[in-house]
Formats: sequence, C-alpha cells, structure tokens
Amino acid sequence: MRHVAPSTVRRLSLYLHFLEGRGNGAAWTVSSRALAEAGGATPAQARKDLSLFGSFGRRGVGYPAGALAEQLRGILGLDRGYRVVLVGGGRLGAALTHFEGLRDRGFAVSAVYDADGGKAGSALEGHLVRDVASLEADLAGAPADIGVIAVPAAAAQAVADRLVKAGVRALLNFAPVTVTAPAGVAVKHADLALELDGLAYALAHRGS
Amino acid sequence: MRHVAPSTVRRLSLYLHFLEGRGNGAAWTVSSRALAEAGGATPAQARKDLSLFGSFGRRGVGYPAGALAEQLRGILGLDRGYRVVLVGGGRLGAALTHFEGLRDRGFAVSAVYDADGGKAGSALEGHLVRDVASLEADLAGAPADIGVIAVPAAAAQAVADRLVKAGVRALLNFAPVTVTAPAGVAVKHADLALELDGLAYALAHRGS
Repeated sequence: MRHVAPSTVRRLSLYLHFLEGRGNGAAWTVSSRALAEAGGATPAQARKDLSLFGSFGRRGVGYPAGALAEQLRGILGLDRGYRVVLVGGGRLGAALTHFEGLRDRGFAVSAVYDADGGKAGSALEGHLVRDVASLEADLAGAPADIGVIAVPAAAAQAVADRLVKAGVRALLNFAPVTVTAPAGVAVKHADLALELDGLAYALAHRGS
Repeated sequence: MRHVAPSTVRRLSLYLHFLEGRGNGAAWTVSSRALAEAGGATPAQARKDLSLFGSFGRRGVGYPAGALAEQLRGILGLDRGYRVVLVGGGRLGAALTHFEGLRDRGFAVSAVYDADGGKAGSALEGHLVRDVASLEADLAGAPADIGVIAVPAAAAQAVADRLVKAGVRALLNFAPVTVTAPAGVAVKHADLALELDGLAYALAHRGS
C-alpha cells in the first residue's frame, strides 16, 4: 500500500465515525458531500481519499454506507483487536479504563501499571495494578501493541522509553509534554494543553 | 488582528510549550530551527509565523526565549484567566479537575455539574457537584468562558446546546462524538477515538 499522509488517515477516521454515528446496520447510501462535511474536506477531496483505496461511489447516487464503513475499518486496521497496557494508576488511568471509545473499538486494556510500588496488588476499576518495575518482564511474556501513558509530565518520557524498550510499537501520551520515540514507533498525543490554547486564542480574539 | 489559521495557532502553541519546557526564567536564545522542530514546521515557516506578530529574531543569533514566550502567551490569550464549568461528574470529570495542564494554564474549574440529580450536593475532588438543571440559572449570575463536556456520547450534544444557550463561547468536548455549535462558539474535540484510529492504522500498516 502506498504511503498515506496522517491528515488523510484522520479524514478516513472522521468518515468512519460519521457512518458509525448514523448506524452501521442500515442499508443507506451516503453522498461524498456528507462525508466531506464530516471530514472537514471538499467533496472532491473525499472522493479522492476513497478512490485511493479503490472505493468508487456511483455518480449521483453515492456510496453504500455499510460496505464503506466495513472497508474503512479494514483500511484503518480496526478489524482486529489490540492489547493495551496502561501506565499510570491515578484518576486519569481510572477514567481511561472505562472510556467507552477505547473499549468499544477493540482496544482492550490488558494491564495497568503504576510507579508507586505501594499501589501494586490493589485493584483499579477491576484491573490488578502492577508495579511498573515488572513491565519489561511481563511484556517479554505477553507483548502489548499500544502503551497508554497517563503519568505526570516529568515521568512521561522515561515511561515511553521503557515501553519502547519492552517492544511496544505505538504510544498514546496523555501527559502535557511531547514524548519522542525512535522511528518505527507511532506516537500520538492526546494533548489537552494544545486544545485549551486554541480555545483561549478563540476567546481572546473574539470579534477581532 | 488579521485572521490566523488554526494550524498557525497550533504551531504557536507548540513553540510556547517548547520554550516553557526549557524553563521560563533563563535568559537564553532560541533558534528558528529549534522552534521549527518543536512545531513540526520548517525554519522558514517558523520565522514567518513569528513575523506575523511582529517578532523578529536576529540573523545567526535567534530569539530571546523569555520575551518570545511572554509574547506568545499574550497572542494566545494565556495572559489572563478563564472560568471553566465542567459537565460530567464521573471518573473523567474527576480526572480533569486534577489535570495539571488545566490548572497550571489559568483555566480554573469554577463549577462541576452532573445530570444525575442524586449526585448534586456531593463533593467531587473538592468541588461541590451541582444538578445540571440549575446550569442556566447559575451561569446567568456568574458567566463562564469555557464549558468542558465529560458526559457519555449520547448526552454530549444536548449538554453543548445548553452551555451555548447559557452564554458559554468555547467548548472542549471529551465525548467520543462530534458536537456542533453556532458560529461564534469555538469547539475543540479531545477526540481520543481519532488518535486511537491513527495508532491502529500505524500498527496495521507497519513495514508496508
């Protein structure tokens, strides 16, 4: 498959969320205009995005929604399950183990770790909390796909390094700091601070 | 001030986070190359971004970091405080009231609401939880700048509508669904599902 830009992947994801929001089962037809609106793109861009993957709508009719959603799930790699380890057993960690968007999309939290050895052995929302000291040994036996980092900013990079060293190839970081990883490891930031800055900007420049 | 694209605002925010991460107080000089790397841009783009706001580095020397950070905070509207109301007194709400990136940047949670009337009057991490039924009346007396939506997907749009009707002009949505608002209201999505899809795509197409 050719290289696809992150912005394209993001639009494909938005198309899929739009289709899923309208219901998966129904046999309806979706226009490139509706998809474009969901993805923040022009209809021409939406058609081009989908044609990249060999999906062609019928002129004046559109795309069959159910088949398109199925195809998008396949392209995005959402047609399989992923093992997720969560590092950080605090309030955010507790919230994430319950996040409907995580569980419902095939991302299963298989283990929760905390740097506070005193928390090890306790339960977090049904998950046994393990001492992060055992991370490498545990993952050597049962590899994980995705590492979720929910620790304070100062600890985030060290946790990322340990996850990568233990073989994790995708990181989702919630700490308000940029973490880096070697090539071949995907890193996404759930960077609230950036979104908040964007809102502050909008409020500060309202009407200007 | 001229219109500035959201992607520019995002880069300005990344420049600021980079400067803050290196420490605010020190009198050091930052190159456009270092800023560009932090912002995911070319050095030429970084220089252009900053020149938009009248900030000019010295060729071969760079920008004075402290003054530049101060200027960026002013441009982004981070040199003032914002009143935040949080709707959703569940696990995510509890995590957000403690999120260091929220408190430390001048975003003060002034009230927490929950749709479950039975929770009203209880305490959430030091905040009194109020019945969402009183949202409009409360905000009429004490307006808020930002509404944070931390409710299940199915309830998110209705909460957004009520916040907007009550005069809130900026929304940060955590529910895994797109919420819409009238023109003049800024909406940001902390959309974990999109980030997760991006990671799934990266894992599914690794090495391809």
